[in-house]
Amino acid sequence: MLVQKYKDMLSGKSVIRQLSEFATARGKEIGYENVFDYSLGNPSVAVPKVCTDAMIELLQKEDTLALHGYSPSLGITSVREAVAASLEKRFGLPYRKEHIFMASGAAGALAHAFRLVAEPGDVILTFAPFFPEYHPYVDLTGAVLKVVPPDTERFQINTEKFREMITEKVAAVLINTPNNPSGVVYSADTLRELSDILREKSAQYGHDIYLISDEPYREIVFDGETVPCVSCFYDNTIMCYSFSKALSLPGERIGYVAVSPRCKDAETMVNMCGQISRGIGHNCPASLFQLVIARTLDQTADLSVYETNRNILYRELKELGFTCVKPGGTFYIFPKALEEDAKAFCQKALKYDLILVPGDTFGAPGYFRMAYCIDTEKVERSLKALRRFVKEEYGKGKVE
Amino acid sequence: MLVQKYKDMLSGKSVIRQLSEFATARGKEIGYENVFDYSLGNPSVAVPKVCTDAMIELLQKEDTLALHGYSPSLGITSVREAVAASLEKRFGLPYRKEHIFMASGAAGALAHAFRLVAEPGDVILTFAPFFPEYHPYVDLTGAVLKVVPPDTERFQINTEKFREMITEKVAAVLINTPNNPSGVVYSADTLRELSDILREKSAQYGHDIYLISDEPYREIVFDGETVPCVSCFYDNTIMCYSFSKALSLPGERIGYVAVSPRCKDAETMVNMCGQISRGIGHNCPASLFQLVIARTLDQTADLSVYETNRNILYRELKELGFTCVKPGGTFYIFPKALEEDAKAFCQKALKYDLILVPGDTFGAPGYFRMAYCIDTEKVERSLKALRRFVKEEYGKGKVE
Repeated sequence: MLVQKYKDMLSGKSVIRQLSEFATARGKEIGYENVFDYSLGNPSVAVPKVCTDAMIELLQKEDTLALHGYSPSLGITSVREAVAASLEKRFGLPYRKEHIFMASGAAGALAHAFRLVAEPGDVILTFAPFFPEYHPYVDLTGAVLKVVPPDTERFQINTEKFREMITEKVAAVLINTPNNPSGVVYSADTLRELSDILREKSAQYGHDIYLISDEPYREIVFDGETVPCVSCFYDNTIMCYSFSKALSLPGERIGYVAVSPRCKDAETMVNMCGQISRGIGHNCPASLFQLVIARTLDQTADLSVYETNRNILYRELKELGFTCVKPGGTFYIFPKALEEDAKAFCQKALKYDLILVPGDTFGAPGYFRMAYCIDTEKVERSLKALRRFVKEEYGKGKVE
Repeated sequence: MLVQKYKDMLSGKSVIRQLSEFATARGKEIGYENVFDYSLGNPSVAVPKVCTDAMIELLQKEDTLALHGYSPSLGITSVREAVAASLEKRFGLPYRKEHIFMASGAAGALAHAFRLVAEPGDVILTFAPFFPEYHPYVDLTGAVLKVVPPDTERFQINTEKFREMITEKVAAVLINTPNNPSGVVYSADTLRELSDILREKSAQYGHDIYLISDEPYREIVFDGETVPCVSCFYDNTIMCYSFSKALSLPGERIGYVAVSPRCKDAETMVNMCGQISRGIGHNCPASLFQLVIARTLDQTADLSVYETNRNILYRELKELGFTCVKPGGTFYIFPKALEEDAKAFCQKALKYDLILVPGDTFGAPGYFRMAYCIDTEKVERSLKALRRFVKEEYGKGKVE
């Protein structure tokens, strides 16, 4: 018989995917360039040329058996060394290859992180607003994802609610900074407070509570700021990284787990990742892409378009009277809808060919997400539709 | 706290890996060319040039956003169509893209297949000799792998024992033909008998028993034979394929699940694979390699070296007095050891720099595996060591 829990999941269709499908269908009617599709978090800038060049050079010059051969179960040794050296240089923690496990993107990295520390029945806490895929990622391991309600003032963390919810059953806390969907970067103060609570509660409950830090947007940060290093604040941190966003390689599934060198049992944990892989059919990212990223670790795609788009949208949204926390990074913005029901709000926006995603699915009802990883030219063209929408539906803002 | 079951696995080191590490260490002493390393099943022939050319062309000509973008969760549509068309042409079953799920190699494919049909506590049956990784693959899902003892006469299947072991708790039967480690191809008679029993028992127990067919060696077959099409014998077949061996791309992790078009609920099952992925961090194989294999579906590396090596080794082993079933494919041979304890036998072989793997771990004690995916020149040089080993340790065979 087919396993019911997966069969049951088929009926629950992702809101984001439905909207994206609507956008595609509408695009066939009126031309996709006329659909202001803010639904999907797909990078919109090209992979850097240095990356493509590295791929071609490897293919032309390397011995094919070595190039395409099985990767050791923790990842290619030289690649792990390169990742460790880059992290050490950047964050000042003594990373060595023994702290690095190569994973198939952030999804692969998180699949290992959860299984490292959470038994079935254990709780993993995260903070709203949050990436909705965390639910299947965690729940299908047998652990339980619980969501701390948002701090809607700043989209940092709601420490009061967090203190209430961090019970003895909590095995790990999962954060995502810069954050999808809010675009907010957790401040040093936030990370300090979070870490203090984790240390206090670990001591109180007599077991380590791990911090799983999902950092795929780490390189997409604005205003010349840098993202505070999560692993520098809390020793028992499991960093999950993906090159999908920074290098515009989401389909190639390349990332890593980096266990903090200050985490006790760090090496054991990395070795355990190799065992976890055997149970989930993970057998390392593609060898070619491991070797590519080792050569381009400190490169990124031209990410400036995301900041340009953020500036345009943030300014416009504020002018139109939206309540909105200014994103410090990512390619998302998460304003408050103009009516209580964000689903109704986003539904109305469809009439103007604006594809917005209601915040309910991110654990923050009443808000909506715009993924502005689209051409700046299209962002600019979308403003007219946005103004009309706000004016005609809510009587607010300026007229064209 | 760290999850104990994965921590416990760290102490149990794979015999094959230990032997491989011994070979590497010994190679540093005497030169790796002098170590007759028959331990690992790594392809030894180059990826076909047409494949490398396809990779470079894609990298040079395709739009990078499309090329490296997220794959839909079931795989790139055009790739699934190409795989289906190729399977239909070859096996005569009406495969469509709806029957195909792109997976990260055979390990990724099997991870989905097991979760499709087996709940925790359910039994999956396989036949000795078998690939030892099936144990963690299955056991870590919560299902239980049980192993039908071998038919040591022919290394087909032991139907008598199979009939005893196929209880109501059996959700699926897992086969691997051509077989690792025996090199044997299951005959049409075997598949017919197996299928008859599966139909009979499905009817008797009132639930479908699925056949999971692990076929990574399908293209490596000797004497001009073809491998009988497993999916043609039994409707409820889930084919798991990998391009690792046929295209010598093991590190690039590309394969697929093909649910038989005659399997009831085939489309639902493929859709379920997309849900299973969310729980195990599988997010499709690398987009580049999906597109590459779609262009080179009917190509293989030059696999003739494996047949040459099989011929040399089989002839020599028979001359030396070994009992040995002639492999019909793969790059393995699985002779009977010259003493009851194959571990002791393989230990003694190390003195002659022959790296052989005892059959215990494959569920067939008393036998040993040789992986002859090495240069023919080295196979030939190894014969002298093999003769000396057999003569000096067992007083058998000819003298140089």
